[in-house]
Amino acid sequence: MINETFREVLRNEGVVSIVSWGRGEANVVNTWNSYIVVTDNGRLLIPAAGMTSTEADLEVNDKVKLTLGSKNVQGLFGMGTGFRVDGKAKLVSEGAEYEMMQKKYPFQRKMLEITPELVKQTV
Amino acid sequence: MINETFREVLRNEGVVSIVSWGRGEANVVNTWNSYIVVTDNGRLLIPAAGMTSTEADLEVNDKVKLTLGSKNVQGLFGMGTGFRVDGKAKLVSEGAEYEMMQKKYPFQRKMLEITPELVKQTV
Repeated sequence: MINETFREVLRNEGVVSIVSWGRGEANVVNTWNSYIVVTDNGRLLIPAAGMTSTEADLEVNDKVKLTLGSKNVQGLFGMGTGFRVDGKAKLVSEGAEYEMMQKKYPFQRKMLEITPELVKQTV
Repeated sequence: MINETFREVLRNEGVVSIVSWGRGEANVVNTWNSYIVVTDNGRLLIPAAGMTSTEADLEVNDKVKLTLGSKNVQGLFGMGTGFRVDGKAKLVSEGAEYEMMQKKYPFQRKMLEITPELVKQTV
């Protein structure tokens, strides 16, 4: 599901939004394109520093929507592309992937792991 | 509420996310930093091409959360800043501001107007 255009976006810096919901108001937190690590089987690993609102929502609903993009990457209608990822998320605080992310991002409190169910190029 | 750092972000290109909710799943749509027009009294005007999920949510809940940022602008902890705007939104399809936006963005279907209630610099 994670194609070459998506990977090209990750090589361009930008703001990622992660949306969660389940306790009334939806919540949104952000990270940078460059902080996302794609695993061999297409999961997204993201260092979570705060993300306490996400954590509370995940306790009642593990679905999230993530968006990212870059004006520097060719899109469907010209320069500029964006993706929306619908998936299931969990916060991880142990294991080999967590340790790898901890070394890469020492500010990490927990690791957010997203398993995509839909990856849609929106523009 | 819209300060100079926020305006500097708008002068750097990036992905804006607009989150709405009220019918079960939250929804998120995107635009570019450069498409946001700030009015004299601090409202945000945004051309809406699709945004049909936003429109459906606004019928039952007019609150939205918008995030944007840029790695090229000095933030709270170094280079890179981001903002979250909590506000009330409506889709507008007439009036002087709508016409102004229509000239600027001919692809506009309706104009999304957001009145900020909280503007928070998150990083």
